[in-house]
Amino acid sequence: MPRLPEFDREEVLDNALSLFWSDGYEASSISKLLRAMNLNRGSLYSAFGSKALLFSTVLDHYMAYLQCHLFNCTLVSVEDPCEAITSFFDKAFFEPDQSQLANGCLFFNAISELSNNEPELAGKARESVHWIRQLFYTRLLEAKQLGKVDSGQDIEGLADYLIALVAGLRTLCKSGANTAVLRRVIDAGLSTVFIR
Amino acid sequence: MPRLPEFDREEVLDNALSLFWSDGYEASSISKLLRAMNLNRGSLYSAFGSKALLFSTVLDHYMAYLQCHLFNCTLVSVEDPCEAITSFFDKAFFEPDQSQLANGCLFFNAISELSNNEPELAGKARESVHWIRQLFYTRLLEAKQLGKVDSGQDIEGLADYLIALVAGLRTLCKSGANTAVLRRVIDAGLSTVFIR
Repeated sequence: MPRLPEFDREEVLDNALSLFWSDGYEASSISKLLRAMNLNRGSLYSAFGSKALLFSTVLDHYMAYLQCHLFNCTLVSVEDPCEAITSFFDKAFFEPDQSQLANGCLFFNAISELSNNEPELAGKARESVHWIRQLFYTRLLEAKQLGKVDSGQDIEGLADYLIALVAGLRTLCKSGANTAVLRRVIDAGLSTVFIR
Repeated sequence: MPRLPEFDREEVLDNALSLFWSDGYEASSISKLLRAMNLNRGSLYSAFGSKALLFSTVLDHYMAYLQCHLFNCTLVSVEDPCEAITSFFDKAFFEPDQSQLANGCLFFNAISELSNNEPELAGKARESVHWIRQLFYTRLLEAKQLGKVDSGQDIEGLADYLIALVAGLRTLCKSGANTAVLRRVIDAGLSTVFIR
């Protein structure tokens, strides 16, 4: 499959990501994608194969974006595990502008929209969420070893719980929740995790 | 607008609900809807007006279903407010079979899929979620007055938090989470709400 030059590829993937993230998979018709990506039909199919394959590539592109802008500077690199987790929530929910927050998370959007219709694409999004869950798990285990999580707590359960909290917050964002609502939900949600 | 006979109307709305709930709004094409509802095009448009109006009617139908099968027997009628809330989670996440759980919640699905494309339909789903949030709020306030919620807790925040928890759990269900995962997330999630 011929590749577009790198600089074009990044830009067209950014544009495809914007459309899929905002409008979802089904509502992003090929004609909308062509307009958004500024490509003709032949270039789109020769570079990406199909709408489903394009979406799969966009999921990778989104993961790379999150790693660079969210995970690496919080869950991965912050030394204290409790601060790593709280800084993740701060960066995820208080740094992006309102319009980006209103798009929710592409992974959860894909799981919600596509689990029954496009199970392979939803499955790929689910794998990414599982990868994030493992990041939470690793830092929670470390926090427990440092005595910052109650020794009776089930770390597997807390990792699943943090994923549910993120997914729930993303849905609140799509509902237009303001920062005060997000703040109090995060405060309530994290109060069960760490020893106060 | 002519109405179908009551018995037909319930049945065709059940069938439309099944399709929208499983496949989402955009992927439920008119031809799929006609097959699922066993109607011809003329009857569908004369009875429901348009796909968007049909979806709006289906949202009302889903709310009536939830009131009858979920809210009335938990949040509305259980006397003790803590039991009312815990029974809501038990009934919502452990009674339905796996295939129904995997559909998630039609309101959150609509908010996730349609907030940017069909804001009126997403807005209607959001109003329903707000109504559920007010049910949580009322019972939480009662629990606080009974000393079962810490007197320092912000009840508005806890009501938003419970909605986020439900939305997150619905996303886990769409990801295929098993009952053990749902159980530990609910246990972790509710442990912050009531005085232990």
